[in-house]
Amino acid sequence: MESKVPDPVVAIAGVTGAVGAEFITTMNRRGFRVRRLKALASRRSAGRTVDFRGQSITIEELTEDCFDGVDIALFSAGSAASRAFAPAAVKAGAVVIDNSSAFRMDGNVPLVIPEINGRRIAEHKGIIAVPNCSAITALVPLWPIHRNNRIKRMIIATYQAASGAGAAAMQELVESTRANLEGRRFQPKVLPHPYAFNLFSHNTAIDPATGYNEEETKVIKETRKIFEDERIAIGITCVRVPVLRAHSQAITFECERPITEDEVREILSAAPGVRIVDHRIQNYFPMPVDASGQDEVLVGRIRRDLSDPRGHSISMFVAADQLLKGAALNAVQIAELLPERVPA
Amino acid sequence: MESKVPDPVVAIAGVTGAVGAEFITTMNRRGFRVRRLKALASRRSAGRTVDFRGQSITIEELTEDCFDGVDIALFSAGSAASRAFAPAAVKAGAVVIDNSSAFRMDGNVPLVIPEINGRRIAEHKGIIAVPNCSAITALVPLWPIHRNNRIKRMIIATYQAASGAGAAAMQELVESTRANLEGRRFQPKVLPHPYAFNLFSHNTAIDPATGYNEEETKVIKETRKIFEDERIAIGITCVRVPVLRAHSQAITFECERPITEDEVREILSAAPGVRIVDHRIQNYFPMPVDASGQDEVLVGRIRRDLSDPRGHSISMFVAADQLLKGAALNAVQIAELLPERVPA
Repeated sequence: MESKVPDPVVAIAGVTGAVGAEFITTMNRRGFRVRRLKALASRRSAGRTVDFRGQSITIEELTEDCFDGVDIALFSAGSAASRAFAPAAVKAGAVVIDNSSAFRMDGNVPLVIPEINGRRIAEHKGIIAVPNCSAITALVPLWPIHRNNRIKRMIIATYQAASGAGAAAMQELVESTRANLEGRRFQPKVLPHPYAFNLFSHNTAIDPATGYNEEETKVIKETRKIFEDERIAIGITCVRVPVLRAHSQAITFECERPITEDEVREILSAAPGVRIVDHRIQNYFPMPVDASGQDEVLVGRIRRDLSDPRGHSISMFVAADQLLKGAALNAVQIAELLPERVPA
Repeated sequence: MESKVPDPVVAIAGVTGAVGAEFITTMNRRGFRVRRLKALASRRSAGRTVDFRGQSITIEELTEDCFDGVDIALFSAGSAASRAFAPAAVKAGAVVIDNSSAFRMDGNVPLVIPEINGRRIAEHKGIIAVPNCSAITALVPLWPIHRNNRIKRMIIATYQAASGAGAAAMQELVESTRANLEGRRFQPKVLPHPYAFNLFSHNTAIDPATGYNEEETKVIKETRKIFEDERIAIGITCVRVPVLRAHSQAITFECERPITEDEVREILSAAPGVRIVDHRIQNYFPMPVDASGQDEVLVGRIRRDLSDPRGHSISMFVAADQLLKGAALNAVQIAELLPERVPA
């Protein structure tokens, strides 16, 4: 007989952001049971309300003192906020599921994609980190291949949506495009470059030692931590494209042993969190408009990498909703697996 | 003393297209001397006029009989039109510079990027082909590196603009985006997929044997012909992004010997047709808005490919105007070098 575990009190830190909103829609969609929701944001938003399951919830200011009685705290308010307030949440007894990069590489913090390493959740010491959205998008389909035939090397080029830079960046893409179509000048405020009908290298700082930007470095480091394989060689170029909310990637990977596209298709057909969209005759492959609002990583263009004559390499093209599997969904999936919620 | 070569009569086949218009602006900008311009297009456009150096020129229908007295015929009316009418132009005594894929892989047709193999122009038998725009964009900066330290392998992901699919596709990007912003439905007519804030795999047919689309296959074959190196291994993914007229590419290449990013920067600093845009501190790299209207291929993000521990590989990001260096400019540069125009 099941012992009764009470429904958790859940706090959302960053409830007014693009991911914050998707925490709520995702919990609703999945029937995630909640005893009470605390809606937290910066002082600027405090006093406003959000709707949650028919209730209007007043947003409180995110402070060190706001986590009393909270069981699960979903953080998506940026790294600085996570660093400042996640320890207080843990101290108050909450489990923090953090969408920022603040704690991802901390040896005491599990970095979890449930389809890959959900078993690490049980090892948490108060904080569990959600990986970078580009890492999640690539790794969900690469993991089942890697388990079958170790991936030695991957080369990735990303096509990243505005949503990765937050709700204000999505708005800037819309507003700057509208201005462009109306022949008006537009001064970017959120992103450093014009966004209308344009693209640019990912807007994070470049490491002077390597020339790689922070987004690229995150994917490299997080992949090694999640796959528990420090030897994987990764080359990656991260680019922001004028798309609203789904990230795409061109991925080429090399396995230890020869691999065929049929083997990859077979492995991915059975892979959790993956949907194959690979219609050569109709020229129909993963697209951001189709990935938006979807839980799965769409995978297509699965084919032999013609630049590897040994037949160890495959190329493919993927797309996934950055706000869902790249952030909110992955966090809620982790919350669903918390040992505190599963009766022993 | 120079002998006097008369200025040529130039025909433009496909004058109403996106590239057709740029043939004219490019000849004007470069002071390309023309005795007379013949403006040719499909029957649908015949009778309309185009402006050329203060004159209004009536568009004639492109037929087999319209090349009398023409010295140079610039073709950009699609492969079918080139196949149908270029032989007639040659028969009438014209040199055809063809922007389509019709004759590119013909053993009797030089496939020319002047910065790379301009010497092949003299070998023509009436037709000279302009390479695919994605091939030109990649190869202008790769050639001087290849000459210095042979490139064995390249892996490319493209970010291709609407212009590559013609003026109607550019219009469809604008109109579908406008409809999206106004909340109206839009039925794509030119391209097979929604284009507003979306991207999709290049809309050419997929080779069932390889899974590569025609655009990708063109880059592979044309690179080998232009570099005169059948052994170069090439993996490529071609993607259409919602950008108007400049193509970008994430390129990773592997050389026969070790190579450093400083060597690449030094080689490219002196390379014709290349401009380095690589400002790490300012996070300023090649962008389509900056490449549009420019003659050079912009190159930046030059850095070691961290996935190659041997140090033979470099990654970089490039952008070039598809209508200029990718098409019209390359054609006019070829015309400037025609032996018929250069007194012996």
